[in-house]
Amino acid sequence: MSKKVIKAALLGLGTVGTGVYKVLKNQEEEMEQKIGASVAVKKILVRNLKKAAAKIPEPELLTNSWQEILEDESIEIVIEVMGGIHPAKEYITQALCAGKHVVTANKDLVASFGGELLDCAAEHHCDFLFEASVAGGIPIIRPLKQCLAGNHISEVVGIVNGTTNFILTKMTQEHMEFADALALATRLGYAEADPTADIQGYDAGRKVAIMASIAFNSRVTFEDVATEGITHISSKDIRYAKELGCVIKLLGVAKNTGDGIEVKVQPMLVPEGHPLASVNDSFNAVFVHGDAVDDAMFYGRGAGELPTASAIVGDVFDIVRNILFGCTGRISCTCYKALPIKKQEETESRFFLRLHVDDKPGVLAGIASVLGNYRVSIAQMIQKHREEDFAEIVVVTSKVREGNFHDAMLIIEGMEAVHKITSVIRVYGEQE
Amino acid sequence: MSKKVIKAALLGLGTVGTGVYKVLKNQEEEMEQKIGASVAVKKILVRNLKKAAAKIPEPELLTNSWQEILEDESIEIVIEVMGGIHPAKEYITQALCAGKHVVTANKDLVASFGGELLDCAAEHHCDFLFEASVAGGIPIIRPLKQCLAGNHISEVVGIVNGTTNFILTKMTQEHMEFADALALATRLGYAEADPTADIQGYDAGRKVAIMASIAFNSRVTFEDVATEGITHISSKDIRYAKELGCVIKLLGVAKNTGDGIEVKVQPMLVPEGHPLASVNDSFNAVFVHGDAVDDAMFYGRGAGELPTASAIVGDVFDIVRNILFGCTGRISCTCYKALPIKKQEETESRFFLRLHVDDKPGVLAGIASVLGNYRVSIAQMIQKHREEDFAEIVVVTSKVREGNFHDAMLIIEGMEAVHKITSVIRVYGEQE
Repeated sequence: MSKKVIKAALLGLGTVGTGVYKVLKNQEEEMEQKIGASVAVKKILVRNLKKAAAKIPEPELLTNSWQEILEDESIEIVIEVMGGIHPAKEYITQALCAGKHVVTANKDLVASFGGELLDCAAEHHCDFLFEASVAGGIPIIRPLKQCLAGNHISEVVGIVNGTTNFILTKMTQEHMEFADALALATRLGYAEADPTADIQGYDAGRKVAIMASIAFNSRVTFEDVATEGITHISSKDIRYAKELGCVIKLLGVAKNTGDGIEVKVQPMLVPEGHPLASVNDSFNAVFVHGDAVDDAMFYGRGAGELPTASAIVGDVFDIVRNILFGCTGRISCTCYKALPIKKQEETESRFFLRLHVDDKPGVLAGIASVLGNYRVSIAQMIQKHREEDFAEIVVVTSKVREGNFHDAMLIIEGMEAVHKITSVIRVYGEQE
Repeated sequence: MSKKVIKAALLGLGTVGTGVYKVLKNQEEEMEQKIGASVAVKKILVRNLKKAAAKIPEPELLTNSWQEILEDESIEIVIEVMGGIHPAKEYITQALCAGKHVVTANKDLVASFGGELLDCAAEHHCDFLFEASVAGGIPIIRPLKQCLAGNHISEVVGIVNGTTNFILTKMTQEHMEFADALALATRLGYAEADPTADIQGYDAGRKVAIMASIAFNSRVTFEDVATEGITHISSKDIRYAKELGCVIKLLGVAKNTGDGIEVKVQPMLVPEGHPLASVNDSFNAVFVHGDAVDDAMFYGRGAGELPTASAIVGDVFDIVRNILFGCTGRISCTCYKALPIKKQEETESRFFLRLHVDDKPGVLAGIASVLGNYRVSIAQMIQKHREEDFAEIVVVTSKVREGNFHDAMLIIEGMEAVHKITSVIRVYGEQE
C-alpha cells in the first residue's frame, strides 16, 4: 500500500511555528497509524530566510513567497502562526478560497474576524480550526462545539492570560507589588517587552470573545468585551481579599442571561473554594456551566511553544481525518443566533470597595446612606485600620446594577469626609 | 426545505436514560441549526412497560422487544444505557452488524470488550462512541483522541469515582471514619445499595483501563488493572497525610513507561499543591501529561442523570454530523500498538507506612535495617506518639520496586518488636 501523505505549509517560524515543526516531527513515526496519513511540512513562510535557516534542519523548506505556497496545489493545509491581523487575514482568506484548509492560533484575528473567515471556509467546504487561539494547549473549542453540544451553556469563565495570572500569583503568595511582579514576569520571559495587551486584559478579552461565540451560538467580537486590567491591584487588596476568604484573579467572564450576553474581562475576588481560585502561576483554566453538564473545568498550559503546538497539531490531525473521509467543513460556524450584547452599565455585579475617610463619627453612616439612595445594598462593611489622619474602610456590596454603583461612587467621591476611593474590584459569584 | 430527522432508540430508561430523553427534549428547538438535523427518539427499550410509562410523557415510544428496534431500519442510532455486560454486548453487536451507530455509557462493557466492539463498528463503517463511560459529563475521550492526538501521553491520572471521593472528602474535612462516611454517602444517594464496585476500586479500574487504551494507543482491559479500595483508610491516616502536606485520594493511575504500561487504582497520598488534591466531594477529574501539552486537567461531574446525558448527547450529535457528511466510522479504534502491561511487583512506588512497635531502643534501627536490606530507602521516619504499651511510627519511603517492598514487609511483620503494620498507602508523584 502506498503511503498517504498530506502536505502542509507553515506560515511563520517563531516560537509557536518551531513548536509545530517539532511536534509534527515527534509524531512522524506514528501519524499514519494514528490518523491514516502522514503530514509533511512542504514549505515554511518566513520573513528572514537566513535567520530562520538556523532554526531547523531542513532550510530547503523555507520561502519568503506567499504566492509560492498559495499556488502550490499539493499543499492542502495551511498553518498560520504569524500572528497579527495583516497580512494573516488576507493569506488565510486566499488559502480558503483556493480550497486549502486552515489552522490558526491567531486570537486577534479570530476574535475580530472569526465569523467572516468561518463563512469563507464554509463556502469553500474547507476546515478553519483555531483550538490554539484560546488557552493554548487546553482543549476547549472542540469540547464546547462537540462534547458539550447537548447543553445550553449559561456561563464561561476563564483565567486565560498566563502573564497576569503569574503576576497575581506572585502578588498573592510572595506579597509582591504589581510593578515588581511585572518586572519578574518580564525577566522570566512570561511578559512581553510591551505587556499592555496582557496587563490591560485585551488578550484575555479576545479569548473570551471567541469562547462566548461558541458557547452561546451567537457571535461575540473583541469589540463587545468590556476590559479592565490589573495595574491598579495592590498587594493590600489581595490581603483584604484573603481576609474575606477570596483570591484576586483576572477573569474573562461571559454569561448568557435571559436578556442578552454579558462579556467582560476584570480582576475579581474569587472565593477560595472555587476551582478557579487554585489555578496559579502561568496556568490557565476555563470553567463552564451548562444545563446538562453542570460545572466543568479545563486546566492546563495557556501558552508556550509545545503546548500551543499540541492544540495546532490536534487541529491538523482532525483535518487529515476529514480529508481522508471526504468530510471537510464538517463542523463550521455554530453562531446561528444573534443575541444582543448587554451594556456594561446594565449588568449586575458585586463590588469590593476600599476607601480612606475621615476618622470621625457619622462618616460610615453617610456613605451607607449614599449607597442606599442608589439601591446599592451592603453585604459587609469593615473599618480596617486607622492611620494618623484617616481611617480605612472596606465595603462589599450585594449584587447591584453597575450604572447605579458608578453613580453612587461619583457622589461618594465628592463627599468631604472621603479622602480617596482606593480600590473598586468586582466579586465573582452569586452568593453573599 | 424538508426537515431532516435522524431516528434513535434508547435502550434503558433508568437514571441516565431519563436524562438522555430530557436533554434531547431540551435541545429540540436548536438541534437542526446546531448539527444540521433533529434527533428523534423513536423507541425506548424497557423491561417493565408499566413502570416506565410513568416516567415520560410519550409512553407510546416504549417497547420490551429488542427485535422490534433491531429490525426497524429507520433507526440509525442506538443509545445503550442499560448497563451490565449481558445482554448489552449482544444488543450492541447486533446493532453494529445491522449498520446502526451506537453510543454507550457502559464502562463495564467498554473496559472489557471495547476492542472487539470497536472492530465490529469499523467493519460495518459505524460509529461506536462512549464518552460517557469515563468521568460522566467530563469531556475526556474526545480530547484524548483528537485534541491531544499530537502528544505522546505518558500519564493519565484520574479521580474517577465520585462515591469514594465523597467518602474521602468527608473523612478529610469532617474527620469521619470510613464506615460513617459510607453510611452518609448511602443515605444521600451517592453510594449504591451494594457499594463494592466503588469502594474496592473496580469502577475506577474500568474507567482507567478505557482511558489508558486511548491515551497510550494500546489496548488495556479491566483485567490488566491492579485495584485496591479505600476500606482500610482511617481518619488517622488522613491526619498524618495532612502533616506531610498531602491529602488521600483514590487515584486511577496509568503510566506509559519505557518498558510497559503500569495501570492501577489505589488510594494515594497526593501533595496538596497538585491540582487533583483540591478535587472534592463527588466531583471527578482527570489529569493528563503529554510531551507537547505538558500538564492538563479535566474536571467536572463524574456521574448523575444530566451530566452523563450531556456526554451521551454530545456523542449522538457527533454521529448525526457524521451521518450527514457521510463519514461515519471516521475515528475508530486507535490502539495500534501492543505494549506490554507491567506486573504490579515490577512497578515502583513510594510508600507511607504506619506501624505499632515496642517502645524501646533499637526498634527503629531494626526496621530501618530490614528496609535497607531490601533496598527500600527511607525518605522520612517519624515517631508519632506513644501509647501505654507501644509507639506509633510513620515511615515514608523513596521510590522502590513494589516486589522488594512487599518482601521487606513480610520480614518486618514477623519482627518481635513489631505489633502491627497499621497502614500501607502509596504516595503519588516523583519528588521526595
